[in-house]
Amino acid sequence: MIRVSILGASGYVGGELMRLIAGHPAMEVATAFASSNAGQRIASVHPHLALAYPETAFAAWNPALLSHSDLILAALPHGETQRLADDLLSPGVAFVDLGADFRLSSAAEFERWYGERHARPDLLDSFTYGLPEFFRDEIKRSKRVAAPGCYPTAASLALRPLVEVGAIEKQGIVVDAASGVSGAGRTSNAGTHFCTVDGSYRAYGLLNHRHTAEMELTTGGTVLFTPHLMAASRGILATCYARASGSDDPLAILRDAYAGEPFVHVGDMPPETKWANGSNAAFLTARLDERTGTLVTLAAIDNLGKGAAGQMIQCANLMLGLDEGASLTTMGVYP
Amino acid sequence: MIRVSILGASGYVGGELMRLIAGHPAMEVATAFASSNAGQRIASVHPHLALAYPETAFAAWNPALLSHSDLILAALPHGETQRLADDLLSPGVAFVDLGADFRLSSAAEFERWYGERHARPDLLDSFTYGLPEFFRDEIKRSKRVAAPGCYPTAASLALRPLVEVGAIEKQGIVVDAASGVSGAGRTSNAGTHFCTVDGSYRAYGLLNHRHTAEMELTTGGTVLFTPHLMAASRGILATCYARASGSDDPLAILRDAYAGEPFVHVGDMPPETKWANGSNAAFLTARLDERTGTLVTLAAIDNLGKGAAGQMIQCANLMLGLDEGASLTTMGVYP
Amino acid sequence: MIRVSILGASGYVGGELMRLIAGHPAMEVATAFASSNAGQRIASVHPHLALAYPETAFAAWNPALLSHSDLILAALPHGETQRLADDLLSPGVAFVDLGADFRLSSAAEFERWYGERHARPDLLDSFTYGLPEFFRDEIKRSKRVAAPGCYPTAASLALRPLVEVGAIEKQGIVVDAASGVSGAGRTSNAGTHFCTVDGSYRAYGLLNHRHTAEMELTTGGTVLFTPHLMAASRGILATCYARASGSDDPLAILRDAYAGEPFVHVGDMPPETKWANGSNAAFLTARLDERTGTLVTLAAIDNLGKGAAGQMIQCANLMLGLDEGASLTTMGVYP
Amino acid sequence: MIRVSILGASGYVGGELMRLIAGHPAMEVATAFASSNAGQRIASVHPHLALAYPETAFAAWNPALLSHSDLILAALPHGETQRLADDLLSPGVAFVDLGADFRLSSAAEFERWYGERHARPDLLDSFTYGLPEFFRDEIKRSKRVAAPGCYPTAASLALRPLVEVGAIEKQGIVVDAASGVSGAGRTSNAGTHFCTVDGSYRAYGLLNHRHTAEMELTTGGTVLFTPHLMAASRGILATCYARASGSDDPLAILRDAYAGEPFVHVGDMPPETKWANGSNAAFLTARLDERTGTLVTLAAIDNLGKGAAGQMIQCANLMLGLDEGASLTTMGVYP
Repeated sequence: MIRVSILGASGYVGGELMRLIAGHPAMEVATAFASSNAGQRIASVHPHLALAYPETAFAAWNPALLSHSDLILAALPHGETQRLADDLLSPGVAFVDLGADFRLSSAAEFERWYGERHARPDLLDSFTYGLPEFFRDEIKRSKRVAAPGCYPTAASLALRPLVEVGAIEKQGIVVDAASGVSGAGRTSNAGTHFCTVDGSYRAYGLLNHRHTAEMELTTGGTVLFTPHLMAASRGILATCYARASGSDDPLAILRDAYAGEPFVHVGDMPPETKWANGSNAAFLTARLDERTGTLVTLAAIDNLGKGAAGQMIQCANLMLGLDEGASLTTMGVYP
Repeated sequence: MIRVSILGASGYVGGELMRLIAGHPAMEVATAFASSNAGQRIASVHPHLALAYPETAFAAWNPALLSHSDLILAALPHGETQRLADDLLSPGVAFVDLGADFRLSSAAEFERWYGERHARPDLLDSFTYGLPEFFRDEIKRSKRVAAPGCYPTAASLALRPLVEVGAIEKQGIVVDAASGVSGAGRTSNAGTHFCTVDGSYRAYGLLNHRHTAEMELTTGGTVLFTPHLMAASRGILATCYARASGSDDPLAILRDAYAGEPFVHVGDMPPETKWANGSNAAFLTARLDERTGTLVTLAAIDNLGKGAAGQMIQCANLMLGLDEGASLTTMGVYP
Repeated sequence: MIRVSILGASGYVGGELMRLIAGHPAMEVATAFASSNAGQRIASVHPHLALAYPETAFAAWNPALLSHSDLILAALPHGETQRLADDLLSPGVAFVDLGADFRLSSAAEFERWYGERHARPDLLDSFTYGLPEFFRDEIKRSKRVAAPGCYPTAASLALRPLVEVGAIEKQGIVVDAASGVSGAGRTSNAGTHFCTVDGSYRAYGLLNHRHTAEMELTTGGTVLFTPHLMAASRGILATCYARASGSDDPLAILRDAYAGEPFVHVGDMPPETKWANGSNAAFLTARLDERTGTLVTLAAIDNLGKGAAGQMIQCANLMLGLDEGASLTTMGVYP
Repeated sequence: MIRVSILGASGYVGGELMRLIAGHPAMEVATAFASSNAGQRIASVHPHLALAYPETAFAAWNPALLSHSDLILAALPHGETQRLADDLLSPGVAFVDLGADFRLSSAAEFERWYGERHARPDLLDSFTYGLPEFFRDEIKRSKRVAAPGCYPTAASLALRPLVEVGAIEKQGIVVDAASGVSGAGRTSNAGTHFCTVDGSYRAYGLLNHRHTAEMELTTGGTVLFTPHLMAASRGILATCYARASGSDDPLAILRDAYAGEPFVHVGDMPPETKWANGSNAAFLTARLDERTGTLVTLAAIDNLGKGAAGQMIQCANLMLGLDEGASLTTMGVYP
């Protein structure tokens, strides 16, 4: 069994990782690090895992414990992985990071979007961007993967094949997206209070949301990205607009691009976020509006699945030579 | 007291109209027409109105009953008002229509977007478009008002002042909007089933939603409109994108445009649909993204309030020389 | 105009009070005290009130400001009113308290249920319990009213008339109730996080919830009360069980008891909490189960309306000789 | 591979069965019967299964197709299994029925609660009641299992061990329960419309809900059962009240009763329905209220999991000699 250490195990992504690992035929949890909950039993924070982890407790951060791990999964706030890099990046241990620290291509880009200097620019080149649909071979060969953000996963799946075949102009892309509240993490504040979100819908992070950087990276274009918060626990829908370069059918392009992909479904119908709940699936569609010369392309995922924990496991499976879909499902819990 | 007849009184808009009229100092319900529920008590369909209308029952359609009315409010499926025009449009009686029949400027436009010939093109010119913020004086002078659709109300409030001062290009406008489920009406089907909508989010009506026609009418531009269904009973948020013509601050433009408007609030914060619940208010903001040369402007309303029944009452108040805000509120029921 | 000071104005009840007062023909806000938000504009905390209170700011607590008030409404955590009693209880000023401090009949009862000594037992007798349907005349004559808790309002309305006519046994009453999240207040914590509540349902406060004391007070019986948290912002449904004493029709008893009551509706149908949203209405029904000898009686209210702010205004209207229903509505915002 | 035929495959339970079978190591779908959707692809009704069943279509009812099945799972309206019994009950084929037809112990009981004569009383004795926690050995030996209703599963798990040890009186049990909307099935009507349920809570089926019969069967007592509809797609919480016979700790009794049970968790905390979403788990707690002499015991399950499809698969696994937990999970998708 591959022994897995999780950093940030008490968060929503941490809980999802522990759920997936409990069902994984070849992985088991070695240590669940969660400093603020150290010593507490898993079920006190993740009650839905009470039967799967009846005895395990969260551990305080202690790099010495990593020596027993074959795989390290980090779901930490951005900046943390840079700081802990010397502890985390042993040569022989596979590492998948969900933070933003090693996603971008240069320290300058990181500083531009995150407003702080990158502490370990020397390590940037050693990471692979963890979107298997575009970088599967690189991930297989890599020991260090930076898994994409949830919004960029959806937007990139919807847009990149259309960019690659030249069906859309790279400049002036608009990504209008909605996310479930778990994307904001487990922190309780006025914005995540039930009464604020329930029955409501709002935009946030206007103009400069940091995930824009990854969308520009995977599309090679300029993107204006507007995230919205929706009244759901999970799910992301990205509705993307771009100027059409020609009159190719974007649905056919997406179908070609994703033929054989185990976790991507391209269909006629506008996808619903709930189809993907609890799964690693992505549901896509696209249309060309000849009247305005605009191409609309949409993707729905579970932000904690394909947008976070599912994708991390998918990457880890590839890195470790396992079945790419081990412990992952294409089927959402619906309704 | 002004005696009001309502057509389509058993629908969601009908219920909201009856709620507003029950609180109106100068109006009372004369007849609540609802053919499919004729003879049933109001409370059997609108239980929240049980104390306000303890005895009233819905009436079957009977144009003779209109002779006792000073105001007719129609919340019918499109096409119905054309058909009933001879009965509804007595010279002396104020009429506000929420259907699409008399919103557009020409029979050709109607046929283009609604796919059927207009039965009464002769009457089109006699109607005023019922958006008081832009056509207040015309509405005051009019006996026939076609109240806007819910999405166009939000999009027009967000966009039109920016078009008028030339801050945005008229071509290539994108309106990405989300609506609560009451916008789909009271009909029960797979799409409005609780389990379909709960915890989910999806686009629908891609490329050719009929409300596009009104958005192009009020902005004079070309619009690509994508509506979404959100997990809320009420509310519309329109997030609108347009190419900026210059570098004017769109927030200042909106503040100027709506100074003194009783139901429009322009603020710094991205608005939330729930702020408007149960009210006639609209909450707006806007930003210029210099990086991509795009202007983003947003409006939140209650689709049944400013997007339907509230706006109808606001128009009727103007037409009848009453206080424009009678029975209307600027305050949502929140949280 | 009656000048009203509000303590706890930044909470959910405070916001509802300000909403109701803005629509009140004879009241206006004198001072909105909210220490933690002192100096901030109302709209920064209550964005739905932005158009109604464009300039007002919250004030820090300063008893000197009360000298300009004709009415004081307190929506504070329990214990606070005792502490501030000397400042709040000027002889000539009407005072309505939503805290628990002066609801119970004796200091011993308070200590039993709240686990702390009552600081001002001398004042307990000077307060009237603010349930107009049972104590209307006393409220009219009183200068100090302790408004009931949200759960006791619902349970008392459902049970008390049945106790009074002897239709049920006083011992062994069970109250099983569900509340919207606003009942837990504005505080953000794990229990009020959207992701915790969304799509879920749970009991809390098993066996010893403090509101039990009021239920036993108004029914004169012994009550086992189990509150639940439901995925709604507003609303309380109390489903109450008691052993039937005879075979009287409980629906007829309730109809008799509430005939003429402006805010209570007794009907055949099991009530839904949403019917009452944003209103001061209560919807009741009851059934006798001859098979098991049990009587089931249900009440639905808005916890912030009839369960809090609405009831406070209803009491204040009575105390001040105003129309009992001024600024209140019987009609929920529905759907 | 065990070949499984499903009747009622287009409903919510049908979809859940197909989801579970797609992940089952030893089962595969032979035929998915769904008369009203015959000929349509699975994904047109269950879009979340699009990647798992890309080609399969629903079949019209044709008993000849059953000859290729090793297991038949029926999720039909009550009455249907009686009617189809001759086709469904081949001697050698395992059969699990989710309908009510063969759950009760006698034709008289069926007629009493369902208001119609039982068409096949001769078959009643041949069925085993499918609650593995109480009847595991009988299920293993049986070829015909009647899986319990969703409410009775929750209530029986919470109550039966307490009855068995004599901790509660059998008479006067009250079961107050809440269910997600999927329990009402896929039919669209006013009661399942999103706008009706969203943000609301109501009781239904007062006094005589048919599931009472099963609760009385498994507890041997008299039960008054009040179901409620909550604003969630999935989940059941049963809050059960009974007079305590003594002062035993009910939590210890439940822990003893369920020690070693793979899908039952007994804990200190009141359980939340969402913990179980998508799983076959049941979460229980119980308390003795010495003040009123009442015992409160609660159970949370997923109505489509342990309350329907999960339990059917659990029974089938037992009947067929497979691992009892194959394709089932104890972990809900949370949050």
